[in-house]
Amino acid sequence: MRYELYYWTGIQGRGEFVRLALEDVGADYADVAREQGDGVILPFLRGERPGVQPFAPPFLCAGRQVIAQTANILAFLAPRHGLVPTSAASQCQALQLQLTITDIVAEAHDTHHPLSVELYYEDQRAAARKRAQAFRTSRLPKFLGYFEQALERNDGRHAIGRRHSYVDLSLFQLMAGLDYAFPYAMRRLQRQTRRLRALSERVAARPRIAAYLDSPRRLAFNEDGIFRHYPALDDAG
Amino acid sequence: MRYELYYWTGIQGRGEFVRLALEDVGADYADVAREQGDGVILPFLRGERPGVQPFAPPFLCAGRQVIAQTANILAFLAPRHGLVPTSAASQCQALQLQLTITDIVAEAHDTHHPLSVELYYEDQRAAARKRAQAFRTSRLPKFLGYFEQALERNDGRHAIGRRHSYVDLSLFQLMAGLDYAFPYAMRRLQRQTRRLRALSERVAARPRIAAYLDSPRRLAFNEDGIFRHYPALDDAG
Repeated sequence: MRYELYYWTGIQGRGEFVRLALEDVGADYADVAREQGDGVILPFLRGERPGVQPFAPPFLCAGRQVIAQTANILAFLAPRHGLVPTSAASQCQALQLQLTITDIVAEAHDTHHPLSVELYYEDQRAAARKRAQAFRTSRLPKFLGYFEQALERNDGRHAIGRRHSYVDLSLFQLMAGLDYAFPYAMRRLQRQTRRLRALSERVAARPRIAAYLDSPRRLAFNEDGIFRHYPALDDAG
Repeated sequence: MRYELYYWTGIQGRGEFVRLALEDVGADYADVAREQGDGVILPFLRGERPGVQPFAPPFLCAGRQVIAQTANILAFLAPRHGLVPTSAASQCQALQLQLTITDIVAEAHDTHHPLSVELYYEDQRAAARKRAQAFRTSRLPKFLGYFEQALERNDGRHAIGRRHSYVDLSLFQLMAGLDYAFPYAMRRLQRQTRRLRALSERVAARPRIAAYLDSPRRLAFNEDGIFRHYPALDDAG
């Protein structure tokens, strides 16, 4: 089946979690807005297309299904492509971890947009500094400590079972985004994130992922996405 | 099977979405922390219990499975109790809508905690007023408009298919919480939320839900939960 992925052009954003899964399994997919422009997304958001309406991108068209919400898309794709164990219990565990990744991604976003997504970062800098400080000192170590412990309690190398899964791909992307946005804070957590670091390296070395990361399809992080590097929000202290 | 639900005592919170599903199907369950105190939650969060560790409550013990993340718990329970159609496509649609409810619930929470969950509301009032204004004027109408349209594009009465589902229960709870927290803003959206209002009334009239809402098990909303009524964050204008 040829999938169609819809996500805003110009940023990795939440679409990147889906893109990594599609790339890792060598799926046949079109990255539709990148080919045709962001305008193709709008009819879906306005409810002018059949299928369940997405609230926001990313969404994936798979035959007649239109599937939105990043974790939901991944939970749909993964069993079709061997990116999660076949047991219902494992799939439930994987979704639990993925939804916790969703939570920290939303909190990372809100460090630069604590007051409103309609305002520019520049118009909420003071609040952003406070939210980012709470994120760096409290939430970031709590979330990463949780994922580190999840790896440890499993086999030390994978999030789920004894095999690579979509959760591992998302943990790689989470670490990459956090390293970009908060290099100082992340360096300070180096010792507490050894298993996450090792997992990230293994994911980056997977042949299809390595080829993707090296391709023009992998955009650089930038200050329009979820993970933004504003030195005032990181901590050089 | 007897389920064990774990959630902080004293508030409805995210646990209420799970509680409504359990009550609606007449499930046999223990609300463990309410019976034994919040202390029973901590060993799970510290990873001292078997099973996949939850990051936060609510979590549900079902036999040997420990399942966390509200939407994930609902997606687990629903097919076992007829709270979602049996087709994979319908279950995928239901999870998509439920995760969008998760998103607005998080944004409703952040109106009173825009800077940090570690600070009291009283220590982030100015930022809360700004975030709440953006929520009321932009995000709230956008999310509720989306759910209203989802009902309309379906059969006008249900979120999924032609039958009651867990998503309908969660939409009821969302509307109840928003009515409590933002009575003025919600009154202003009355005409744009007719289907959501009618759905909420039908849910509240379901015999088991009516009995539950009337029981001491249903706590009142209060200013420790997700949906808090701070007049400064609503809009009497």
